This record gives sequence, structure tokens and C-alpha cells, in this order.
Amino acid sequence: MTAFVRAAAEPVRVVLVGAGQMGAAAARILHGKAGLRLVGVVPHRVEHEGEDAGTVLGLGGPSGVLMEPHLAAVLKRERPDVALHMTCSRVVDADADVRCCIEHGVDVISIAEELAFPAAGSPDWASAVDALAREHEVTVLGTGVNPGFVLDLLVIALTGVCADVRSITATRVNDLAPYGPSVLRTQGVGLSPQAFAQGVADGSVVGHFGFPESIAMIASALGWEIERVEQTREPIVSAVRRETPFVVVEPGAVAGCRHTATAYHGGLPVITLVHPQQVHPEAEGIDTGDTIEIAGTPGVKLAGSPEIPGGVATAALAVNMIPRVLAAPAGLLTMADLPVPAAIQGDVRQLLAGRGVRRG
Amino acid sequence: MTAFVRAAAEPVRVVLVGAGQMGAAAARILHGKAGLRLVGVVPHRVEHEGEDAGTVLGLGGPSGVLMEPHLAAVLKRERPDVALHMTCSRVVDADADVRCCIEHGVDVISIAEELAFPAAGSPDWASAVDALAREHEVTVLGTGVNPGFVLDLLVIALTGVCADVRSITATRVNDLAPYGPSVLRTQGVGLSPQAFAQGVADGSVVGHFGFPESIAMIASALGWEIERVEQTREPIVSAVRRETPFVVVEPGAVAGCRHTATAYHGGLPVITLVHPQQVHPEAEGIDTGDTIEIAGTPGVKLAGSPEIPGGVATAALAVNMIPRVLAAPAGLLTMADLPVPAAIQGDVRQLLAGRGVRRG
Repeated sequence: MTAFVRAAAEPVRVVLVGAGQMGAAAARILHGKAGLRLVGVVPHRVEHEGEDAGTVLGLGGPSGVLMEPHLAAVLKRERPDVALHMTCSRVVDADADVRCCIEHGVDVISIAEELAFPAAGSPDWASAVDALAREHEVTVLGTGVNPGFVLDLLVIALTGVCADVRSITATRVNDLAPYGPSVLRTQGVGLSPQAFAQGVADGSVVGHFGFPESIAMIASALGWEIERVEQTREPIVSAVRRETPFVVVEPGAVAGCRHTATAYHGGLPVITLVHPQQVHPEAEGIDTGDTIEIAGTPGVKLAGSPEIPGGVATAALAVNMIPRVLAAPAGLLTMADLPVPAAIQGDVRQLLAGRGVRRG
Repeated sequence: MTAFVRAAAEPVRVVLVGAGQMGAAAARILHGKAGLRLVGVVPHRVEHEGEDAGTVLGLGGPSGVLMEPHLAAVLKRERPDVALHMTCSRVVDADADVRCCIEHGVDVISIAEELAFPAAGSPDWASAVDALAREHEVTVLGTGVNPGFVLDLLVIALTGVCADVRSITATRVNDLAPYGPSVLRTQGVGLSPQAFAQGVADGSVVGHFGFPESIAMIASALGWEIERVEQTREPIVSAVRRETPFVVVEPGAVAGCRHTATAYHGGLPVITLVHPQQVHPEAEGIDTGDTIEIAGTPGVKLAGSPEIPGGVATAALAVNMIPRVLAAPAGLLTMADLPVPAAIQGDVRQLLAGRGVRRG
């Protein structure tokens, strides 16, 4: 919740931190929403400085908002309600921007994967930032499709119908073909099985980024104390030739990484998350999709194919959580602490008023 | 949020209002949860007065809690934190019990279908009860599998990944075979098609109870103003003989009611809810299940078969929402106002403490 007091008729003022693919996607989404106004764009890298953000980000023409290099200066001048932070994956890389926003009294919604549940990997940072956010009366939220939604929030919500849960298995099968070289490299696409094993050993093949966060969010919501988490990263060896603009996978080479994480409670595996990521899974007849299966009373299984697409969904979640964050109490929160997201189809000001929310 | 201040080590004190099938199911669920204690049971009808609730409700033996007829007396003596209200479907029938709890400073979780979104059918009542709840600093929530979860909360959550939503279709196919004569009668099971049409006309065949609430919850969350809602109730005419302990459906007779509701915004159908309820759908090769389909950017489709079972899921949701309601601000709330439910697998006191929640 921002410390600002505004007239109800004024739109919510949004600053974008990061103007890469995700930042541009978020800008295009919020550009079409009544009651939201983009008032500043601060690219992560020095690029397009002084150019019009509307042109650079594809908003259908000049917007009057310029690309600027200094976050603090933009926050001080524009006094936004909320910053969408879309620059990085790790707490250590997000730290300076997040603190800058907090100290300027601006709510933060970040898509950094570690921010989805920062207490999992950075408990000291989480405590310190929570205290700082409360001191400045702002809300900080990490969100995204995964971690942040498919393999954690949706799982938690589905356990809500259960009298008892024995174990949870959630699987997300996706296609890496649309992605660029940096993502393909972290999944070992195109490597030989031997080079893949070496990459896992030396940390250059990382697989999915977010299992510790998703597991901690589920366990925290249900009240399971997790004793240990086992992770495996196995090569998906292709039987056929697969090709994208950035990589060719010959038969016998690695098409992607099957990354799994299993969390134990009471000596038993209670949470198993499975995320095989590869280029062109359809080349071997594999459907993409999301599946959540809960063994409990009652058992619950829900599945969808194809998978909820990662890019647009993450940008949409960041925008759609704006009214939730503006209405939330101060502090460092997770998706499990807030009401569910909803697509913004009406005027955000009316959504806030209709929910009896005081802004300011 | 209750006005009581308790030591963190004390369990949450729960009173059960209503001791029918749903009340007994909820009692059995909360009986197994650490940090929850059943301190009173007030049956809706005069029955089992003075008997031990543990024996009557199947809690595995005497509990020391007696079945008592007067809600106010139990609330006054036991000073519970929350009441689970499981007696009826309509606001008018829930009114006295809900007000009694509020005036005794006790949070309320009700499974009355109209309480899932009471502003839909009873806006004046909703305003008055919201004000009364705030005055007494208590929280009132309506929940249940449907309305309250499958055809509304889950739908809303899934739109959260969308940059834009054009329309929503959600379908729940279930089996009425486990149900008794009163439910079968409201769905027209066993009637001739002519008698079914007559029953729809005179209001004795009602179909599903909860479409206005689900539609209002979705529309309110997304910000759609709904111009009109069209409902249809069609007979599901059986081609084969179907039989339950309470009804025989001969070929050509009605096996159930296909109830649909379509909500319009901007002249277009934006929400379509479909709920065909019949005995033994498998007799004609029909699978039960829940399906949510969102036409938008991106499109989302999620489905599960069989359907999330209504009885245990509703009782579980009522119990699982206890920590959410204890941590919530005062007022009349809906499932879309609160963090998602989660199965309670740990001690409720630690769940409350772990979420940084102040009770009292």
C-alpha cells in the first residue's frame, strides 16, 4: 500500500523498471487498461536513453514518457504508486532497485524468481526488506507464472478442498523453441549427454529457476516442515533432429533438461515438482501442459494442455496484481498472502473502490 | 478477525452451528487438526439434545462437548473464535444465527450458498451485515465448493494470467446418485419431461443454487458490469434405466437438470456457467468433471475428472478457511477478498504465527 494520497479520479501511476521482453510485454498490457498510467521507464541496461518509451516498447506510437537511466530521479519526480520490476531473477540483483523504490514510498511488484518466496533462499534479506517496507508503509510482492502461480499458488488453492493431503505432484511440460541462446544454454540444449552431465556438475546447466521458492510457498501455506529437498537434472536425449533459430539438436544430443524437486516431511516425499523443458517436444509426440495432482481426501487432479504460456502470463500477473498490492498491508508479501489475481477488465479505480479499498 | 485476545498456545475455539451431514463432516475434519478445538455444537433442528457431540457426529468417542439448543448461550459461555455455520442455503434463513455470532464477537464461516456473494441477491442485507461485522470487529465469510470455489474463485485465479479476457466458460458435471430425495426433487429426477417443464415453471425444479453468486463474484473481481443473466433449465432425458436407493428413472424420463447461466457485458456473453446434474451419468458414457475455459490472451483451459466432490470439499473449505478468517480484517467478505485456502496440515497456531498474523 503506497503512502500517497490521491484523488480517486486519478489513474494509478506505474513506473517500469526494466524494458526487455518482459518489461515491454507488461507495458503493452497496462497501456490498454483504464485507470493505469505508465509514468516512467527505467531500462536495466543503458539503451534508448531519451527515446520515447511508447515507440521503443511498441505502444502504438509516442507516449510522452521518455526512457531514463536513473530510477531514483524518476521516482522522486513522478511519485508513482507502484513499480513493476522486471530486470533479473535473483535477490542480489534486485536488491538496490527494490530498496530504492521502498525508500521512495513506492510499492513494488517484481518478477524476479527468487522474490516469489525470498525467505526460501535469502531469509536475512527477506526480514530486512520486510522491516524496511513496513517502515515506509509500502508493499513488496514477487510474482510470475512459475514460481508464483502454476506450481505453487494454484497448487495451494486446490488443496483448499481437501480434508487431508498426503502428497502433491505438479508437472509443467513446456517448449523452449521460442527462447533465445541464454535460456537454451542454461537448459543444456544441443549438448552431448556427457557435456550435459559436466554442465550440471559445474553449474552451467541449471534447469528451472524457482523450485525452492515454490516448495517453500506450498509448505508454508499448508504447515509442513520440510526436512530436505532432493533435486535431479536429467538430460532429455532426443531420438530425432530438432531445430530452432538458435540451436540444432541432432539425434543422440540433448533437447532439454528434465528438472525435478522432491521435498520430504516426516521422512516421506510430500511435494514433487517436475519441469521438463525442451525444444520441440511435439517432435517426439509429447504434449506440453500443466498438471496438478493431489493425493488426499478427496484426491484432486486438474490438467491443461498446452501449458499456460510463461512470457505473457508473467507480464499479465505483474499488471493484474497492481490493485491487490495497492490494497494490501505493508510488508514483503507472497502470492499466498494476497487475494487471487484477476484479469483487469474494468477501470482499476473502480475495482479498488468496489472492493472497499482505501488508497493512500 | 475476532475481538478476543488469547495466548498463542491456546487452540482456536470453534463452535459448530448445524449438525447435519455437512456439520458432521466439518466436525470430523477439524477434530483431526492440531490447534483447533470444537467447544460447542448447536444443531439446527431439535435433536440429540444433551448427548455427547463426539458420539453423535462420529468423532471416535465421547468428546465432552454436548449438543445444545441455544446458540447465544453457547457463544456467551464458550467465547469461541469462530463459528462454522452449516444449516441452510439462503440469507433469510442464515440471518438470525449470523447476527447472533457477530453480536457475540465471533467470526462466522457459512456454507449457505447465498452467503458466497450475498450482495448478488441481498444487497441491503449485505450492507447491513458488513456494517454490523465492522462494528463488532468480526469477519463473516461464505464459502463452499460451488458457489465459492470451482465455478468462481478458481475461474478468477486463472484469469490472473491473462492480459485480456473475452469470455469464460466453466462446466461442472456431477453425479446425483449419492443424494437423498430432497436434492433429487429440486433437480426433477424421475419426472416425465412434461412434469419437469411444469416444475421449472412453478419453481419446484430449481436446478443449481448459486449461479448469481458465482457470476457476481467473477464480474466483480474482473470489473465487468453485467447487463443481464439468462438462465436455462433443461431436462436430461435418459435413454436407459437408471436407479438409486431413492429414485428409478425409466427410459424417456428425466435423469437430472442441465442448468446454465449466461451473463452479458457490452451486449456479449462473457460468462457461461454450465452445471448438468443427474443420477448415474456413466450409464450413458458421460464422465463427471470440472472444466474451466478462458477465451483470451492467452487462452487457458484446465480440466479435471471426476469432479471435485461437493460434500467433503465444502466441509474442508469451511475448516481450511479458519486461519484466513482469523487473520482477515473485519467485515462481510467473499473468497475473492482473502488469500487462497490451503489444507491445514500443521498446527493452526503456527500457521497463524508463521504468517505474521496477530490474533485478537
